[in-house]
Amino acid sequence: MSSNSFGKLFTVTTFGESHGPAIGCVIDGCPPGLPLSADEFEADLGRRATGRTRHTSQRREDDAIEILSGVYEGRTTGTPIALLIRNTDQRSKDYGDIVETFRPGHADYTYWHKYGIRDPRGGGRSSARETTMRVAAGVIAKKWLAERHGVRVRGYLAQLGELVPARFDAEAIEQNPFFWPDADQVPELERYMDALRKSGDSVGARVNAIADGVPPGWGEPIYGKLDGDLAAAMMSINAVKGVEIGDGFAAVAQRGTQHRDEMHLDGFTSNHAGGILGGISSGQPVTVSVAFKPTSSILIPGESVNLAGEPVEVVTKGRHDPCVGIRATPIVEAMLALVLMDHALRHRAQCGDVGPVQPLIP
Amino acid sequence: MSSNSFGKLFTVTTFGESHGPAIGCVIDGCPPGLPLSADEFEADLGRRATGRTRHTSQRREDDAIEILSGVYEGRTTGTPIALLIRNTDQRSKDYGDIVETFRPGHADYTYWHKYGIRDPRGGGRSSARETTMRVAAGVIAKKWLAERHGVRVRGYLAQLGELVPARFDAEAIEQNPFFWPDADQVPELERYMDALRKSGDSVGARVNAIADGVPPGWGEPIYGKLDGDLAAAMMSINAVKGVEIGDGFAAVAQRGTQHRDEMHLDGFTSNHAGGILGGISSGQPVTVSVAFKPTSSILIPGESVNLAGEPVEVVTKGRHDPCVGIRATPIVEAMLALVLMDHALRHRAQCGDVGPVQPLIP
Amino acid sequence: MSSNSFGKLFTVTTFGESHGPAIGCVIDGCPPGLPLSADEFEADLGRRATGRTRHTSQRREDDAIEILSGVYEGRTTGTPIALLIRNTDQRSKDYGDIVETFRPGHADYTYWHKYGIRDPRGGGRSSARETTMRVAAGVIAKKWLAERHGVRVRGYLAQLGELVPARFDAEAIEQNPFFWPDADQVPELERYMDALRKSGDSVGARVNAIADGVPPGWGEPIYGKLDGDLAAAMMSINAVKGVEIGDGFAAVAQRGTQHRDEMHLDGFTSNHAGGILGGISSGQPVTVSVAFKPTSSILIPGESVNLAGEPVEVVTKGRHDPCVGIRATPIVEAMLALVLMDHALRHRAQCGDVGPVQPLIP
Amino acid sequence: MSSNSFGKLFTVTTFGESHGPAIGCVIDGCPPGLPLSADEFEADLGRRATGRTRHTSQRREDDAIEILSGVYEGRTTGTPIALLIRNTDQRSKDYGDIVETFRPGHADYTYWHKYGIRDPRGGGRSSARETTMRVAAGVIAKKWLAERHGVRVRGYLAQLGELVPARFDAEAIEQNPFFWPDADQVPELERYMDALRKSGDSVGARVNAIADGVPPGWGEPIYGKLDGDLAAAMMSINAVKGVEIGDGFAAVAQRGTQHRDEMHLDGFTSNHAGGILGGISSGQPVTVSVAFKPTSSILIPGESVNLAGEPVEVVTKGRHDPCVGIRATPIVEAMLALVLMDHALRHRAQCGDVGPVQPLIP
Repeated sequence: MSSNSFGKLFTVTTFGESHGPAIGCVIDGCPPGLPLSADEFEADLGRRATGRTRHTSQRREDDAIEILSGVYEGRTTGTPIALLIRNTDQRSKDYGDIVETFRPGHADYTYWHKYGIRDPRGGGRSSARETTMRVAAGVIAKKWLAERHGVRVRGYLAQLGELVPARFDAEAIEQNPFFWPDADQVPELERYMDALRKSGDSVGARVNAIADGVPPGWGEPIYGKLDGDLAAAMMSINAVKGVEIGDGFAAVAQRGTQHRDEMHLDGFTSNHAGGILGGISSGQPVTVSVAFKPTSSILIPGESVNLAGEPVEVVTKGRHDPCVGIRATPIVEAMLALVLMDHALRHRAQCGDVGPVQPLIP
Repeated sequence: MSSNSFGKLFTVTTFGESHGPAIGCVIDGCPPGLPLSADEFEADLGRRATGRTRHTSQRREDDAIEILSGVYEGRTTGTPIALLIRNTDQRSKDYGDIVETFRPGHADYTYWHKYGIRDPRGGGRSSARETTMRVAAGVIAKKWLAERHGVRVRGYLAQLGELVPARFDAEAIEQNPFFWPDADQVPELERYMDALRKSGDSVGARVNAIADGVPPGWGEPIYGKLDGDLAAAMMSINAVKGVEIGDGFAAVAQRGTQHRDEMHLDGFTSNHAGGILGGISSGQPVTVSVAFKPTSSILIPGESVNLAGEPVEVVTKGRHDPCVGIRATPIVEAMLALVLMDHALRHRAQCGDVGPVQPLIP
Repeated sequence: MSSNSFGKLFTVTTFGESHGPAIGCVIDGCPPGLPLSADEFEADLGRRATGRTRHTSQRREDDAIEILSGVYEGRTTGTPIALLIRNTDQRSKDYGDIVETFRPGHADYTYWHKYGIRDPRGGGRSSARETTMRVAAGVIAKKWLAERHGVRVRGYLAQLGELVPARFDAEAIEQNPFFWPDADQVPELERYMDALRKSGDSVGARVNAIADGVPPGWGEPIYGKLDGDLAAAMMSINAVKGVEIGDGFAAVAQRGTQHRDEMHLDGFTSNHAGGILGGISSGQPVTVSVAFKPTSSILIPGESVNLAGEPVEVVTKGRHDPCVGIRATPIVEAMLALVLMDHALRHRAQCGDVGPVQPLIP
Repeated sequence: MSSNSFGKLFTVTTFGESHGPAIGCVIDGCPPGLPLSADEFEADLGRRATGRTRHTSQRREDDAIEILSGVYEGRTTGTPIALLIRNTDQRSKDYGDIVETFRPGHADYTYWHKYGIRDPRGGGRSSARETTMRVAAGVIAKKWLAERHGVRVRGYLAQLGELVPARFDAEAIEQNPFFWPDADQVPELERYMDALRKSGDSVGARVNAIADGVPPGWGEPIYGKLDGDLAAAMMSINAVKGVEIGDGFAAVAQRGTQHRDEMHLDGFTSNHAGGILGGISSGQPVTVSVAFKPTSSILIPGESVNLAGEPVEVVTKGRHDPCVGIRATPIVEAMLALVLMDHALRHRAQCGDVGPVQPLIP
């Protein structure tokens, strides 16, 4: 019941600071017999990694994962899978001049209040470096969901500052470093980011994720609802300020006739609900949308206070992302996969491998 | 670890169907010695109750709470507090003609898929009647938070369909049945709701809640963040489709210079973060905003299917709210209070009654 | 994660004081579709009830159970099952003269220290009355285990003070109020208890329980071992001071050649392990043995202190069991069933309805 | 809620197989500010280590602990503490001829049934190597308990086969490799073990542990009782078959007058209860006694079956302990410390740093 654990039956516990010796996680509850090797983590970790383009942090993380336990002769054994990544590029000196200064909008002030400890190394435990292990755990969940249930999870950048996609082309997403679903806009995004970086400022973003193939019946009333767990999962990601399921806040101004998804024997006519009704999956795609704030680690001076209780001006040098949302797509996907996997196991526990009824609507 | 339980240390477990014999809850972890009597629940339950105005469901619920345990001579004992409300107005016959029919946008389809059981009585476990017990548990949390920490929780209706408040007057909120912060607009809201009710349709709403007086340091990284738990709490309420902390989705189009809340020795200059940084309270007011969808139980016919696998047209008669968001304000407040109380205890467990440091900013 | 909850997936939360208005429980995680009616609880509650013979407490408890939720048209729905028993025979005045006095060996001293609250009514939350709800929940677990897996759980009194059964006759157990497996000794037991009651003293007991038909594979390493959970379950029963699995403490003086249960294709040659190896069931009967202390509520004066910090002499009048172990057999059975049911669901979650391999040994 | 986690608020999650690359643990919930360095683990790990005398396994484990996270500048930060030990002496070939054979009394049969995976490497996850991490986590708990509450935890070997201590001399315990409280008997124990080892057989043992200085009030009714959690903790240790609190099974034949610990203003007259009443500490020393079975990995041939379903004769060569109980004393101490620390935090959460009342009895 650690606060650094996520999931009831497929439980991921993460540890590590961004500038400590290592980060890692322990995954408990994975079904036995799933083929797994260390190189399967590379693709998704690469999608999340810094330093791939000029638009993200230039820190070079060597995200080489070592499997410490839970896998024998290439298959999961059913016992805890521990994953480890050594931190290699830990330029703590970059943070030298902010050791005593709190950064506006940053967790260092609240961590210090909570624990009375000031660990200035790259955000310590609050660093987005922690999300590396979410992505790693998500790789296992994605694989099991795909093999066992044909579930496919994918995400994309749905807004960058004020820019929105002109169209949705699923093929385009993985062809550009922004996970943007419209290839034609990519040059515009690059100019936008170049200008932003030059200005020293940062900007927010919206990431969407979709899970296709989720069977009806996953999710547990009342406080273990699928959407409740998704909201917790997404809000736990660094810099997230909002979560929507289906139409989300657009539903506020909708009428019931407009929002309800009518049902026919060959399918639903729409998916305003985002594939979840009463906290339980309906068989439609599960859709979630997540708001990322602009990072507060920017080059433009801001007013703050220091440990000595003096007013100071602060500039965050370091190597930060001008838009943390860009690298967040694989993280959102991972959290969606982790929640679904957990609920797949929970549903199986209570209702068995074969559910009580056949789906009425394909 | 029941899925019908909420909270790690202040744990609320609810039970009961809207048309069964009773609903109730068990609250475990309440500190001993808190004065408590059954009549203290009346005020908040009254704010949530149906049948108070023509704008909400006309079902008359007699929400008389019986305290079954955990209180001795007017004080909590530290052992589980069980609360019970007998259901009295259970006109199950109202649901007679939809026994075999699934309602679009309603949980009956997904519950049936999950459990293979068709309980048509008023939504069964998925009914918003369950939220009565959240409000009741919230009364205890609100009281303890106020007495022990001076925390005050309040909510209001921030949007009704397309209508938004013209101004914010905290005094107005409790003076009208909509919890609307602008008294001048109340006649307009009444006309809006009358027209909506006449049309047989429903509409969505947005509810905001604020907690003042939360000390810095509450919230646990990484998967027990204060905002993560708030997101889960709010998304678990019936009909909720979105949750925001602080600026929420507005942060997507903001710049870092705009969003970061600068710090001075006499306070923060703004509260875009909603009082939470890195999942831990900053000492500023904690603010949350919640989107409610339009209820799917409406009088306008919709297309659906029935248990026999036939296409049907469905009309929901019953006595439903044309806008479930109107009565939701006390529920959102209650969930905010439950999360804060849980985290107050969790913080005390790890860091002691007196935190490690004095607040730097008032 | 309430401390008044037991079980990870089949979760039982109990509430209520012995002399408050009611006791009850909420059972979450029960698979849907199990036939269940209120009269099914009668048999086991009767076995546990006081006032059936002169050898147990003469308090008359009317253990009429009301099902408040989770059952529809005679079948479980998959949602929380709440059970309620109103307390009827609450002669609180019996406890009048011990209101201010702590009883040696009794929980009133430690409860007062923990909570600062003195609830003298019959032991309040620490009363064995709470075990009524364990037995009730156990009825559901026993039924599901029997129907789904052919598991049969039974218990018996294996020692009463210094008396031990001369032989084991399974048929005899339910034919006498002691659950004693040797009918010939029953008159001796009656004389023993009569003399004990007359002396005003109390005596300890040992209860054994066995589960037949448990398939191999239930139990989760390392801290969710089947025997670990059994130990917690049994030690949580009032007055229990020891728990053994299989040979228990006898294993201390055994040799490895003697203790190890050799395996043949037609079965194990012995069952020193009690059906559990490495925390996981082996397919052999699961056996557990539980030590009950003599109750401290006796008529013989003892030295103690009172709330005012004065030395006092205390006599517990009331209507107490001279041997709490006599009525404990159904409680031990219930806890065994609850643990097994929880692990059946946990095993199904991780490994599916059909385990990965066929049992090698019948 | 991983099954490889222990503790509600001071949560220890272990991972790793005895012959995999590493073992480790993640400790979450440790209060911030506790001084901690890697060399503090050496003493207790040394007490548990193999290869120190001829009476234990001759495997040489280099238990060098690396702190991966949660400590900054020599103090705990409040975030997860991850500890890692690389496995160095992994002679898997020792197990070569039992790859396909199940060992009587060993967990390999049940693990295979549960998971369908056969990992013959030294018991894999079921190896007592896992307890290294319990001892490591226990070091932290012991230190915090001592510094914060003056609690002192110590254990000793209370029975070896049929041998029992002739007297109890606390000073003797750490002066011999058996943790035996009577120095005069040590030569006898050495001859006993030499003979046993020569015979190729193994023997059981009993380990006792005591915690002095535990304040009254720790422990949570009903399913979070201090003794309930202790029972689970002890029974989760490899080879344990029984747990007693206080007088344990001896209470079965006791009278109430004999067992109840009378109270005086200067203390209790006895401690039959083992310092726990109603699941809550009384202020007396907490005492627990644990039964270890004789290991089933012995040199004397036994009858078994293999994966092919054939009858076989099995001999376990390897380097096993003829009495696993000898090295178990630090493990039992560690589990006692982990339970107490968890309950110290849980008590603080509900009842605050300063309990509601002053102890009545010193």
